[in-house]
Parts: sequence; structure tokens; C-alpha cells
Amino acid sequence: MTVHALEAARRLAPRFAARAAEHDREGSFPVEDFRDLREAGLFGLMVPRSLGGLGASFAEYAEVATELARGNGATALVFNMHASVTGALGAVTEELAEALGVPDAALAARDRLLTAAAQGSWYAVAMSERGAGARLSQLSTVYEATDAGWHLKGSKTFCSGAGHADGYLVAARSTADQSVVSQFLVPAGDGLTVEPTWDALGMRATSSHDLHLDVTVPADRLLGGVEGLALVVAQLMPHWLVASYAAVYVGVARAAIDAAAEHLNARNLAGLSAVRARLGRADAATAAAQLVVAEAARRVDETPGDAETNRWVWRAKLLAGTTAAEVAASMLEAAGTSATRRGHPLERLYRDARCGSLHPATSDVCADWLGIAALGGDPDRDGSAPRW
Amino acid sequence: MTVHALEAARRLAPRFAARAAEHDREGSFPVEDFRDLREAGLFGLMVPRSLGGLGASFAEYAEVATELARGNGATALVFNMHASVTGALGAVTEELAEALGVPDAALAARDRLLTAAAQGSWYAVAMSERGAGARLSQLSTVYEATDAGWHLKGSKTFCSGAGHADGYLVAARSTADQSVVSQFLVPAGDGLTVEPTWDALGMRATSSHDLHLDVTVPADRLLGGVEGLALVVAQLMPHWLVASYAAVYVGVARAAIDAAAEHLNARNLAGLSAVRARLGRADAATAAAQLVVAEAARRVDETPGDAETNRWVWRAKLLAGTTAAEVAASMLEAAGTSATRRGHPLERLYRDARCGSLHPATSDVCADWLGIAALGGDPDRDGSAPRW
Amino acid sequence: MTVHALEAARRLAPRFAARAAEHDREGSFPVEDFRDLREAGLFGLMVPRSLGGLGASFAEYAEVATELARGNGATALVFNMHASVTGALGAVTEELAEALGVPDAALAARDRLLTAAAQGSWYAVAMSERGAGARLSQLSTVYEATDAGWHLKGSKTFCSGAGHADGYLVAARSTADQSVVSQFLVPAGDGLTVEPTWDALGMRATSSHDLHLDVTVPADRLLGGVEGLALVVAQLMPHWLVASYAAVYVGVARAAIDAAAEHLNARNLAGLSAVRARLGRADAATAAAQLVVAEAARRVDETPGDAETNRWVWRAKLLAGTTAAEVAASMLEAAGTSATRRGHPLERLYRDARCGSLHPATSDVCADWLGIAALGGDPDRDGSAPRW
Amino acid sequence: MTVHALEAARRLAPRFAARAAEHDREGSFPVEDFRDLREAGLFGLMVPRSLGGLGASFAEYAEVATELARGNGATALVFNMHASVTGALGAVTEELAEALGVPDAALAARDRLLTAAAQGSWYAVAMSERGAGARLSQLSTVYEATDAGWHLKGSKTFCSGAGHADGYLVAARSTADQSVVSQFLVPAGDGLTVEPTWDALGMRATSSHDLHLDVTVPADRLLGGVEGLALVVAQLMPHWLVASYAAVYVGVARAAIDAAAEHLNARNLAGLSAVRARLGRADAATAAAQLVVAEAARRVDETPGDAETNRWVWRAKLLAGTTAAEVAASMLEAAGTSATRRGHPLERLYRDARCGSLHPATSDVCADWLGIAALGGDPDRDGSAPRW
Repeated sequence: MTVHALEAARRLAPRFAARAAEHDREGSFPVEDFRDLREAGLFGLMVPRSLGGLGASFAEYAEVATELARGNGATALVFNMHASVTGALGAVTEELAEALGVPDAALAARDRLLTAAAQGSWYAVAMSERGAGARLSQLSTVYEATDAGWHLKGSKTFCSGAGHADGYLVAARSTADQSVVSQFLVPAGDGLTVEPTWDALGMRATSSHDLHLDVTVPADRLLGGVEGLALVVAQLMPHWLVASYAAVYVGVARAAIDAAAEHLNARNLAGLSAVRARLGRADAATAAAQLVVAEAARRVDETPGDAETNRWVWRAKLLAGTTAAEVAASMLEAAGTSATRRGHPLERLYRDARCGSLHPATSDVCADWLGIAALGGDPDRDGSAPRW
Repeated sequence: MTVHALEAARRLAPRFAARAAEHDREGSFPVEDFRDLREAGLFGLMVPRSLGGLGASFAEYAEVATELARGNGATALVFNMHASVTGALGAVTEELAEALGVPDAALAARDRLLTAAAQGSWYAVAMSERGAGARLSQLSTVYEATDAGWHLKGSKTFCSGAGHADGYLVAARSTADQSVVSQFLVPAGDGLTVEPTWDALGMRATSSHDLHLDVTVPADRLLGGVEGLALVVAQLMPHWLVASYAAVYVGVARAAIDAAAEHLNARNLAGLSAVRARLGRADAATAAAQLVVAEAARRVDETPGDAETNRWVWRAKLLAGTTAAEVAASMLEAAGTSATRRGHPLERLYRDARCGSLHPATSDVCADWLGIAALGGDPDRDGSAPRW
Repeated sequence: MTVHALEAARRLAPRFAARAAEHDREGSFPVEDFRDLREAGLFGLMVPRSLGGLGASFAEYAEVATELARGNGATALVFNMHASVTGALGAVTEELAEALGVPDAALAARDRLLTAAAQGSWYAVAMSERGAGARLSQLSTVYEATDAGWHLKGSKTFCSGAGHADGYLVAARSTADQSVVSQFLVPAGDGLTVEPTWDALGMRATSSHDLHLDVTVPADRLLGGVEGLALVVAQLMPHWLVASYAAVYVGVARAAIDAAAEHLNARNLAGLSAVRARLGRADAATAAAQLVVAEAARRVDETPGDAETNRWVWRAKLLAGTTAAEVAASMLEAAGTSATRRGHPLERLYRDARCGSLHPATSDVCADWLGIAALGGDPDRDGSAPRW
Repeated sequence: MTVHALEAARRLAPRFAARAAEHDREGSFPVEDFRDLREAGLFGLMVPRSLGGLGASFAEYAEVATELARGNGATALVFNMHASVTGALGAVTEELAEALGVPDAALAARDRLLTAAAQGSWYAVAMSERGAGARLSQLSTVYEATDAGWHLKGSKTFCSGAGHADGYLVAARSTADQSVVSQFLVPAGDGLTVEPTWDALGMRATSSHDLHLDVTVPADRLLGGVEGLALVVAQLMPHWLVASYAAVYVGVARAAIDAAAEHLNARNLAGLSAVRARLGRADAATAAAQLVVAEAARRVDETPGDAETNRWVWRAKLLAGTTAAEVAASMLEAAGTSATRRGHPLERLYRDARCGSLHPATSDVCADWLGIAALGGDPDRDGSAPRW
């Protein structure tokens, strides 16, 4: 990535912001935002340069995500899913592929998916299920081998961008062997049905609807080319499943401060000391969360999967989520009743911001893991709940 | 009041709760809730027994308001406005009336309004204006004497129950003498136009729309029968302008705890220690806020207008507002993402709860006044902003 | 109790305050404070009128304790122990005694202890042990019957007032039957050795030293006259083991606000808005905690042992402890560096206030129990730790 | 600086920690800690390499300070003063000296002071006065020219290391022209009297006593060689007057977490969920504060005096101070009553940690400045108090 991507994100953010209120109100997908992202070449952000992408690092992704979220957190969250898919695919080095037993054909298939992304396709994630949450070990969506490839059947929930993406990363369990969980990149089209269930407090424009699958995909859509790689990848790349949200919520917090400042200046209320104290403390907290996200991202790039890296990932998730919620609540209080009218950015940001702590791993879970680690324990072993 | 009113409120709350989601979604007025309130005789709650009412004390009002708010905070907020009007009117004793120079005819007119309330009428408050907020000293709505009585012209905002009440308490400034502010009870009907501006984050069912007035009312609709009493009343009865909200937000906080407990029990999540800690602290904070509201209300009944009573009123307003917001945010976090779906009570309560600190006097203003008093100062004299 | 006791407490508080700095610095016992308490007749506060005492209710005790703590929290904590002993003894009604199988002779012995208190004796509590904490079920101090009465042997820790009291409530386990825990009122004198271990962050003047026992007491010093009553009493009267601290910490919080106001006024800093906001919020929080303590105490008097009463007791303990710590920390910040000099009341109060949450049941434990109750569970059954 | 200095700090910290309890108890100066610092060459940390020092950047200083503070915050605070003096002296480039009109002889004198530091001398700061605080514009210490150089007379307070340093940076006002404030480096020796006034809540080993001056110093001890440079330097290098404390308090917070973890593990309490949640949140907050300090320091090195740099400096000061206080309070609560015994590291850290927010600029002042900046204002112009 050159600084080009970051500049593009900064350029797009005001456009996203201008459209955000309507998409929030309608719960409609920000189609124009995604057109802008495509035209700016940002779908290739995480695609290696050798495949036509920008080859961004995780740290560079985090910066871009924060800037996009200053425009519209929902757009940034959906983009985050695409970045997760392409980032995880792109991060599989030849060494890793060999160690995992990934055949060459699968690497070629992977390259085709990434090349398509660089050329303007984007992917969503269909992982969660009702009851199972995001825990891969409890999936009920199943797959089996057929002559045409793989047949998948089941239902996913919280699928951000459902009905708009060009492909979906789907986790499913083998009918032949219940202990085998695999991941597929299912192309948009027949066999996928969107049930518009998403109508939520915040991040309403993500269209995180239910997705029903009864679909057959070509053989090369099995990611890695080998069944059973899903759990392995989740454990190798927890940052994409935990921390990439964090960058988004830093952007949401910063947007709330900016909106409050604009609101207060327009009403000549900037001189009130209670208001100043609120903005000052919000600014410091948000700046801190942003640095923690950047540090986590830097370490993900340098020493992914390391125990210390994981701690930074949890810190980032915890602080971004709690900071966004507290900052938005305080900024709304600073701005006062007139900022609670629908259509006012702070009204939306207050709702959007509350969602960060709730994404897995939740703030309470991150605090528990960090506590275990601070006490010298191993969150994988000592945690009160299975991590995946 | 017998315990009858409190029992009625408890009986009605579940009905209000069942209707709350729809009114919240539509931003529609809870017409059936108000039919229930009428049928239960609760419009006469603050009307003296001698005029057919229940003769409740402020403390009894506070208990009723909290119970109603456990069903629907928006309904309780609108009811609060009616209670404020009837409570303030009912609280004008003969001694006070004499001291203020209220003529007998005005007392008779007052009694007619209260009797009507006991028989099923209810009143809204049209006090705030854009720019002036709730400060009587900066009103732009004007009135002048005509042969038929008084002609009022102007626009009000944040008029909860606009279009549904049987009458509106309106503050206006004399065209003859700018320093004179008077209050009128304007009957519903011609000359009043509701502009549906209310579309807000929370408390959406209050229908707190704009109200445009270009109306002539009979002479006896001047409250007190003497011009210029408005500021006096505001200073005599600050509890109705500051603290009566507090009881509502205690109910909102309690409703959030109840909703979280129900949600968590239904999902077998009651055993999680992080969840328990959240509910435990929320319970303690809410119980404390409820006691403070009750204490403030008790003192309002016993020593209204007293400096120490006012401190309790500010404490009640501050704690109820901040507690409701913090409790609802924590309960939503305890319940998790599935509670953010629209229609889930916690999704609504999180938005409703944020509004409490923003009603005048805001939490920050109450903290300032309390700080001045703790330092031995006089908030009326030393406060950073005019109090009315 | 007439209002006499409360007035006495208010009269004594400034004297305690004047001596507090020295006792805090030296870690010395406030002997003069206890002389004052004796002369004011307050050792008989919880003694029934029929035995020469003031016959105070628990609610009245709570008010007195708060006032004493405004002078010196450490003095109030030690007094609290005496009040607990006399209060628990005095609360054993004839009905209860009969139900527990308490022989008449034991009631007579009890009456002698209470009469002595009314005449100027005071008692300390020697319950905790290293390792066992305050949990009766894990004691290592033992007793056995001898010809002369009972022989007790063991070591207690955190014995407030050690070396100064006229008698000590000691819990011990029978050597004959490990499951039997009994309580004795051991008179001061030979066989008791104080080891001056108490040198702590706060509440330094309590002289909560270790007490070593190797002593024989007359037969009638077995409380209740029947072995094995200890656990029963703990469960019947949890307020004395949990909540009586709460009243003390409300007084500490209020003292911190008063000290900050005096400090700031003396330096003409009362006009700073950040300072005012701190005092205002501290005032509201402290007022709330005080009401919760009063409500808990009222319910203890009316429906002791009731599930709802216990919830109020835990709320009181939780809120008093957390409020005192937060208020004192904020008041010190409001007052600034000059208030951190040793000898300044805020310097001491900041340390004293931190101790409230740590007394059993700790704030975290109370939050857990309250959470269980809010979720419809039973803290006795579902709690993560044994309650006694 | 090579990594040598940081390694030295890490090596020394456990030694400082082992001595910390005694110096805290006695309020005695950590003479051995300073011997260790001298022997490790750390007095030359901020001295340019050309003068025999380590030539550390501000960012490198911050890392060292945090490590030293993990051993003993008081030692680190005194060292911070020396680092401030040598750092500010070393930061005066030839260009800046020329711009300020500093004569060559003064630069040579400056070099002698720095060379002495590299060889084992260390300097304290005697800036604050009773009444004036740290504001240079309100000093009462005066100086006048004499044949022998300069005669200074006055009294300073909060002089950390008083009686132990080899020299003192003293600000004084000209008797000839009240508007001229100059700074001198006064050597230890006759004419300086230490009045042992420092006996405070925390950071007790700093020996921040009063220093009375009635002393004549050689002409070359006027820093800069030109009268009136003091205010200018304060405004050019606010980081040394505001932010260098921050690094120390990050170390204090981290030390509290480490002490709590050790305490809990030793007692097999690491499995308690409430304890884990406390440690986890403390860890995240401390990690965030540390990054903010590092970022502020990095910007101080790259763009000192820049408006954005100053914002980071205020963020660092605000977050380090509040985080240390909150973390230490929570860790003490996690560890429980046994950690409140004097001599336990958490008992000391709880007191030390409270001091961070109180050093100028206080947390409340930083929040105000940050709020002004977030609102687009200029804290220098719009702040409620003069900054120096």
C-alpha cells in the first residue's frame, strides 16, 4: 500500500457520512459507498501486489478502516469483512500452505479469488449461526461432496452485506465426519436466499441479514483444498476474528467527538466548562484507543499468533469497544437534547457505538482473557469459555 | 391517594410494556395507554379529593410514575406533564393565592380545570421554544388582551402529547410589557397546529412535537387570574420543572434490569460471573436512585422550596438520569448482540434511558448546583447560567 | 433511643476529628474517644432499656455510626464492633432463645453482659483468623470443656480494639466435635496477648492487632449457653457481619466532602467549575449511599433475615464502600497537592475510605450476590463462595 | 542512547523495589538508588554524546523513566527532575541559542554543567513557591547582580531531592525589574537550607522539602547568560514541565498490576472471575497509557512545541495520572485487606499513584485544554487559567 489507500479513505469518508443518515434510517445497504470503494481500488487493499492488489499490511488496513468509519461505521464494518477474507487468504504463505498440506491447485484457486477482489469483487462472511454464535465448534450448517463439487445446506445469521457481496465465506461441518469443519467461498447467485432479519439498534446499514444456503459450489471453492482447515485458520489468525472490529470503533468514537464539536461550535456552546471537560476526556480516550489498535496491528504484522500479540489484540478490542460507547454517550450528553433528533449524526453514533463491545470477543471476555494473562495463565487453557 | 393508584399503575405497566415496541417504532402516541390511565382514574391523581381527585402527594406521584415507566417510559413522561400541571395548580393553597393576589374568580377557574382532570381530561405543557429552551426569561411567544379574553401567538417545541391532550399549559410574554410572563391553560381545538417534528433517539412515543399557537382563549384561562405569575410559580415549585422526570428514569432503569434478567435466564446465561456483576451493580445503583427520588419527593411535600429540598431535587435528577443511562448500557452489554434487535425491550430502553440526563436541569447543571451548595454557596446567585 | 444519642454523636465528632490525625500517624488507639463514648452513655446504645441501655434500633445505630465516622472513621469502626456484639445479644428475644434452646441461665448471663455495657464496658470481636478470613466454617481456634468452664486456645487477627476492650467475642471450634462452632465472651485479662501487627493503609487507629488466646473462661461465658450456636447466629443476623460497616463509610465519604469544601473555600478555589462538578457529584453519591444504608437498617429492624432485607444489606455494603473510595479520591483531586500533606484530613480520609470495599462481604462479593438475586437465584445456593 | 540505558533501568528496578518500602516508611531519600543511577551512568542520559552523555531522546527518556518507576516511583520522579534540567539544557541548539541571544560564554557554561552531569552530578528543580505554585509569573524569590555574580534570596517548596542534589535549577525574579524572571543553576553548599516539610501521602521518598536560598552564585550560573529567558524556555519546552511525570506514573500503574498478580498467585486466588476482570481491565488501560506517553515523547522529539505535540503531551499527562490512580485502587481491591498492611507494595503504590493527577498540569486542567483544542480553540488563549 502506498499512502494512496489512506488518502482514498479520507476522501471517501465525507461522502459516506453524507449518506449515512438515510441508510441508517432505512436500514438499507450503502450501495454507493461500495461503488466508491470499488472505484478507489480498495477491494484490493489486502490483495498481494503480485495479484494486482495494494498489498496492505494489517496495520495499514487498521488505519484505512478507522478513516472509513469516521464516515460511516456500518460501511467500514462490512468492508472489514471483505478485508478479513482477503487478508486471511493473502496471508497464507507458501510455507504455511505446505505445512498445512494445501495443494497447489488450491493456491491457484485462492489466487483467482484474490485477483477478482483486486479487480472489483468483494466478499462477505457467513460464519455465525443462531445458537452457535461465532463458535466454529458448534455449527449446524453442513456440507457433503457431490459430483459437481460440494453441496452446502444450512442457515447463517449476522451476515453483513448479505445480498450485495460477490461471494461469501461459509463455514460448514462435514456430514461424513462431524468433527471436520471446512470453509468455502460461495459465489453469489442461485441457492442463496437472504432473509431480511437485520433491524437493529446500531450499525443498521450493514444489512447483516440471515443467509440460507442450499447450494452446490465447484470443487475449487473449498478453501485450502483440504477439508478441516477452518479451525486451524481461526487459531492462526485471531486478529481477523477479534481485532479488526476495533479499528472501526475508533473511527466511530472520533466521529462522535467531531460531531459534538461541530454541534457545539454552531450553537456557541464551546465555552461551557462541563462541555470542554467532556470533549477533553473523550479526545484523550479515543487517541489512546487508536494507538492501541495501531500497536496491535503492527504486532499482528510482525509476530502474528504470538501470545503477546494476542494480548494486544484483546486490548484493542476491549478498549475500542468500551471507549466508543462511553465517548458517544458523553458526546451526546455534551451536545444536549437537540442532538437526539433522528438524522443528527450523534443520534446515530450513539447507537452504532454501543455495538463494539458486543461483537465477539466481547469486552467482558477480552477482560477475562487479559486478566488470565496478567496473572501468568493461559487464556486458551484457563478461560471460562471455549475460545472458538 | 389510597394505595389504589399505585396498584393501578402496577396493573397497567405490563399493558404499556406490551404496546411500547410498536409506539417506539412508529413514533406514535400511546393512545390506549392514555385510555387506560383515564379509566383507572389516574388523571385525577394530583387533584385534591375535594374536587374529585385522588389527592396524591408528590411522593405518591413519584411512586406511580416509576411504576408506569417500568411499562413505558414515554407514557410516563407524558403523564408526568399532566401531573405537573395538575399538581402545581392543586398546590396553590388559599394562603399562597392570597399572598400572590390571586382573585377568587381565578381560584374558581382553577378548580374547574382540576375537576375536569378528575373527570378524565389531561393537560400537556407547551413551555420550551427553540433558542430559549425551557428558560421563561427568553420566550418569544406573546399574548395580548382582547375583548374575548387573551390572544396568544407563537411556537412551542418539545410539547409532549401534542395533538392528544385536552389542554396545554402555555407560557407567553405580554406584548404590552416584555418583562411580564404569564401562563395560560389553552384548550385543545382550533388555533392550535401540531407540526410533527418529534422523531428522536428515545422516548419516541411522547409525540413531543412542535405546537404553533394563534388562538384566543377565554379570560379565565389566564392561570392565577393575574398577569406575571409565571416566573413566581417556577421558582416556588422547581420540583415539577426539574425532578418529576427523575421518577420516570428510575422506572426505566429498573425495566432494563428486569429485561436483562429475563433475557439471560431464557438463554441460561445467568451463571456467567461477568453478567452477575453487571446486574448486581445495576441493581444497587437503581435502588439507590429510587430512594433519592423518594426522599426528594417526601421533602417536596413537607418543605417545598426549601434550600435543602432543592438539593434533594437536584440529587434526584442527577442520579436518576445518570443511573438510567449507565444501567441500560450495561444491561445491553450483559445481554449481548441478540438484545440489540429492534423490538427487544433493551434496544428501546437503551435509547430511552439516555434522555434523562438531557432534560433540564441537565445532569451537568445539577452537578454544578450541588457543588456550589456543597461549597456553601447559593446556586441561584453563583451558578454559571440563569436557572430559569 | 431518644434523639439524645444522635446529638451526642454529633457533639463528639469534632473532638474525634481533632484527635484523628495523631492517632492515624501513631497508629495509636483513640483512648480519649472511647472515654467520651463511655461518658456519653453510648456503650449502652444497643442495650435494651430494661437493662439500663438506650434500646436503639439498628436504624438508629446506623445514624449514630455515620455521625461518629464524620469525626473519625476508625473510632466508629471499633465502636461498630461493640455495637454488633451488644446489638446481636440484645436482639435475641425470648421466643428466639426458646427456639434455639437457650437455657434461662444463659439469658441471665447475657443480661449481665448487656448491663455491664450499659454501665460502661465495651466489647471487641475476635472472629477472623489468618487463612480462614471471617468464615466461621474454617476456624482453627479451639475450645474444650474444663472443670472451671471453657478453655480456649488459638490466634485471631484483625481484632479491632485489641488490648483496650473489656471483653472479646471469640468464635472457636470444639475439640470434641470439629463441626461445632461456639462463641464466647472472653473477659480482658490474663491469657490474652496482643501482638501489635496492625500497621495498615487506613483505619490505623482501630488497633486491629492479632490476639492470642490461651485462656479459661467461666462456664457462663459460652454465649447462648449451648454449644454450636455460632453459625446459626451468623445466618440470622448477617447485618451485623456485613452491613454495619456501611454506615461508617458513609460518614467517611461525607467527611471527605466537608474537608474538601473547607480546604477549597479557604483558598478561594470554590469558583472553579471542575471543582464544583466534583463536589456536586460526590454529594449526590454520598447522599444516595446514606439513604440506602438507612433503608437497609430500617428493614433489618422490621424484617431481619428476610431475603429482601438481605439484598438491601448488600446494596448498602456495596454502595457505601465504593462511594467512600471514589468520593475521597475525587475530593483529594479537587483539593490538590497541598491536601496530600500528612495531617491534612483528606490525606487520611483517602486512605481510610479505601478500606470499606475490602471488609467482608467485599464489594465484588456483594455485587455477585445482588446479581444472583436480580436473576432470580438464591445467593446462598448459587454463590461462587461459601457465605460464612 | 543505546539500549544500554533501558537495560540498566530494568536491572536497577528490582533493587529500587527492594528498598522502596523502607524509604516510604521513613520518608528518607533513596541514597543508594541514586548511587546506582550514578554508577550506571544514567545521570548522563540526556547529556549529548559530544559532552560524554548518552544523548537520549525524550522518547528514550520516557522508557527509562517508566522502568525506573516500576521499581520506585519516587526515585523515578526525582530522576525526572534531573532529566528535565539536563534535557532542557541539552535541547538548546546553537540555532536556538542564537535566536535567543545566548552568548557563547553561556553555552560554554551550559556545557560544563552537562559534562558534570555525565560525570556523575545530578540536579534538582526549585521552581514552586507557596502561593505561586509552579507559575513563573507569580514568583517571590528574587535575585540581583552583585560583584561576585548573582545573589538569590527566597524560599522554594516541593523541591524533590532537596539536600541531596549537586545543584538546583532556581527561578527568580529580578529586583531591578519585576517583569524579568531568570533561571540559575545553584550549586549545593552554603547558602542553601533545607527545611524538612515533605511528609505526604505518596511519593514520600522524593524528599520534596522546602529550600531556603540566601546565596550568591558565580555569574556563569545564570542559565542562558541573559536575564529573562525563563518564561521563554517554559513555553518552548512544556513537555518537561508537564509530561515527563507521565512516564513515571505508567510505571507505577504497571507495578501495581505486577504486585497484585504476585499477591493473588501466592494465595491461589487467580481463578476468581472478579479478580481476573479487574486485572484485565487494568492491564489494557495501562498499556494504552504507556503508548500515549510514548507517542507524546516521540512527537516531542520530532516536533517540539507544535500544537499537535502539545495535545499529545496533555493526553499523556491526563491518562497516566488517572490510569495510575484507578489501576492502583482496583488492584488493591483485587488483592484484599491483607495487601493494605504497610510494607506491602500495593499499600504504597495506592498512595503513590494518587499523586500523578495532582502534579501540574492537573488532570482537570489537561482535560480542559484538550477540550478547548477539540473544539477548535487555542488553550493558550481560551483556557480558564494562565498556563504558566
